[in-house]
Amino acid sequence: MISRTRIKWIKSLEMRKYRLQEKAFVAEGPKLVGELLPYSTPLYIAATKDWLDANRHLLRAVKEVDEVSQTELERASLLRTPQSVLAVMPIHERRLDISSLQKKLVIALDSVQDPGNLGTILRIADWFGIHEVLCSEGTADVYNPKCVQSCMGALARVKVFYCNLPEVLGQVEMPVFGTFLDGTDIYKEELSQQGIIVMGNEGNGISQPVAKLVNRRLYVPNYPKGSLTTESLNVAVATGIVCAEFRRR
Amino acid sequence: MISRTRIKWIKSLEMRKYRLQEKAFVAEGPKLVGELLPYSTPLYIAATKDWLDANRHLLRAVKEVDEVSQTELERASLLRTPQSVLAVMPIHERRLDISSLQKKLVIALDSVQDPGNLGTILRIADWFGIHEVLCSEGTADVYNPKCVQSCMGALARVKVFYCNLPEVLGQVEMPVFGTFLDGTDIYKEELSQQGIIVMGNEGNGISQPVAKLVNRRLYVPNYPKGSLTTESLNVAVATGIVCAEFRRR
Repeated sequence: MISRTRIKWIKSLEMRKYRLQEKAFVAEGPKLVGELLPYSTPLYIAATKDWLDANRHLLRAVKEVDEVSQTELERASLLRTPQSVLAVMPIHERRLDISSLQKKLVIALDSVQDPGNLGTILRIADWFGIHEVLCSEGTADVYNPKCVQSCMGALARVKVFYCNLPEVLGQVEMPVFGTFLDGTDIYKEELSQQGIIVMGNEGNGISQPVAKLVNRRLYVPNYPKGSLTTESLNVAVATGIVCAEFRRR
Repeated sequence: MISRTRIKWIKSLEMRKYRLQEKAFVAEGPKLVGELLPYSTPLYIAATKDWLDANRHLLRAVKEVDEVSQTELERASLLRTPQSVLAVMPIHERRLDISSLQKKLVIALDSVQDPGNLGTILRIADWFGIHEVLCSEGTADVYNPKCVQSCMGALARVKVFYCNLPEVLGQVEMPVFGTFLDGTDIYKEELSQQGIIVMGNEGNGISQPVAKLVNRRLYVPNYPKGSLTTESLNVAVATGIVCAEFRRR
């Protein structure tokens, strides 16, 4: 059984304002919740009897658990097709220590606006062993339900820091890479295993204040080079190609 | 002024059934419509006075044009935020001639279900000079509004063929590549500039009947190799990485 107050609380977490206030976000589905459980203790879980029976041993530390019917779950869910479990997870505030980025490969996002793209990029970071992602203040919220659901376990393994991006880039002592339509062919440029890879907004690319701090301008060549094609690749696809190339070297 | 019948017709094209019946689809926004105009004559256009004034010289062959207010456009549009122009474009039926694929690089999609992913993949094909995309019958419809809007001009430049994929793959005399979690590291495998690159469904990958016809199994390695990360990359991201690698060689 799930109370009305509880449903209201869950629904409120669809909005960023309440996520910030409650320091909590919603994760749904057995796969995602299963991936998050080893990293973080849920504040609350609503799940069907079947899911609870199979996972009871993982929930010892969870203080608030409701056994619910599928219909009740549907009333609480933020998704169109809710699955057997919904968890409210804590948001742990993270302080960015710039010195901790040193010698690492890091992704920085300059106002990536689509939560789906953000989620896909976190999966790319996770795949390529990039554990820190910096987000400008204009970037989508990583705890937006659409982003959470497309991130899957990457959400637990990749650390996301919201920051004043130009300020941070001005302080790091590493190469700052970025993709530009007039950059150097990435396959001809020397790449390093440490540095910051900046990816820009879906429509406008990298903003002026950030572009000034990029000291290695890259370009993913189209084929045949210089032919009349699509104006640009989707930002998550471009991130994937760039990260794959850094890690191939 | 736009008639009620017209609005009903446009709205009906949101459904595949009516797109097939009418052999028509809806494209919206000045950028997309502008990119499609050089390739195909719209069956109908509804646009604001400003857009019409700027584009009148391109519309000589268009028989049905309505000048509309922003409010009227909003009533007709399939989008949340309609822009200054909506075009109904003809769907030209294409017959696949297997011999025409010979010596080319071709993408084949085995039940890619998300229209957004399909649109992003067509942009990737366009970017990398891949002009033919084969789609299994279970793949999303390329004329779905969500796909159309994410494709942009790639929709006009890339030819999409829906077909019985195993049947076609059984007939081509070219290497058939596919990505599998147990495939060979793509960076260690010999790649050719002709062949078919098969990409599978978002959840289930490449289906059994298609997998049997793949004779070059590839894998995009994660980093560090074999580490515990995200289970798989998004299908559009993987397509981007694979195509970039084919074209880099």
